[in-house]
Amino acid sequence: MSVIEVIEATRSAVAADAKNAQAVFRSQHELVGVTEVASFTGSGHRVTVDEPEALGGGNVAPNPVEYALIALGSCQAITYRFWAAQLGIALEGVQVEVEGDLDVRGFFGIDDSVRPGFGAVRLRVRLSGPEDAGRYEELAKAVDAHCPVLDLFSNPVPVDRQISIG
Amino acid sequence: MSVIEVIEATRSAVAADAKNAQAVFRSQHELVGVTEVASFTGSGHRVTVDEPEALGGGNVAPNPVEYALIALGSCQAITYRFWAAQLGIALEGVQVEVEGDLDVRGFFGIDDSVRPGFGAVRLRVRLSGPEDAGRYEELAKAVDAHCPVLDLFSNPVPVDRQISIG
Repeated sequence: MSVIEVIEATRSAVAADAKNAQAVFRSQHELVGVTEVASFTGSGHRVTVDEPEALGGGNVAPNPVEYALIALGSCQAITYRFWAAQLGIALEGVQVEVEGDLDVRGFFGIDDSVRPGFGAVRLRVRLSGPEDAGRYEELAKAVDAHCPVLDLFSNPVPVDRQISIG
Repeated sequence: MSVIEVIEATRSAVAADAKNAQAVFRSQHELVGVTEVASFTGSGHRVTVDEPEALGGGNVAPNPVEYALIALGSCQAITYRFWAAQLGIALEGVQVEVEGDLDVRGFFGIDDSVRPGFGAVRLRVRLSGPEDAGRYEELAKAVDAHCPVLDLFSNPVPVDRQISIG
């Protein structure tokens, strides 16, 4: 299906029954080395996670906070694809750079007044195509209002955590 | 370096100069297919992102919101490793399951009162080892207070977005 066909099919399915809008994404993870993690998604993919040597790992793969930035940068790029189609804006290229500042005193508990995660994130989006700049500004506003991972960064998500032992 | 050596080296480096606690993580992304994204991390890794067929992609890799769950599940697992070492708690196995609920009406703009990202996330952590249950409960509290990606899910991160065209 083309992106426009996906948009139309989704609108029809949701109009027929709002329950069709409810998606559940899943992943499973196991610590398989000092810091190496084997991850499996509900969609059938296997992903490796690790820390760099400076954090005790083997650097065989990106670390968790890098995957969070990958989630954000790629979500922006794909949301540009969908919303350009939805708004009828011609778009030829999308490149996204992401930087995240993290003060490691939070993670290590050296200073518990420092948050453990990112203190600030910068997104630099480069677009190319034949439209006027104003159309791409309009597109960027629509993308930022509808990008799932930008929403995750910008707003709290309720997380229910349970542990079992043994 | 062992995890304990990393913790001690980081404490010494930060005590010598607080600037040593400031880390910057980076990634670059390019839309290379309908929904396929090629991502590169500052640490030298290449990661592919894609959407499933139902969302117009080729399902060659996890999608952005799945990578966000991978970031969370793997960050929990690795934070268990570090904080077990820091608290002197023996820990043999860590498994983490993550589920995230997402109402696609937000992403598609079918209903702008629906947030585009996760409405709720569930974390199920399974620990194994020789300690009393109370010690693992203590560990889980320390992990949740210091896990960088759980912080990202739980609290807003300021994101500065700029676009350039052409």
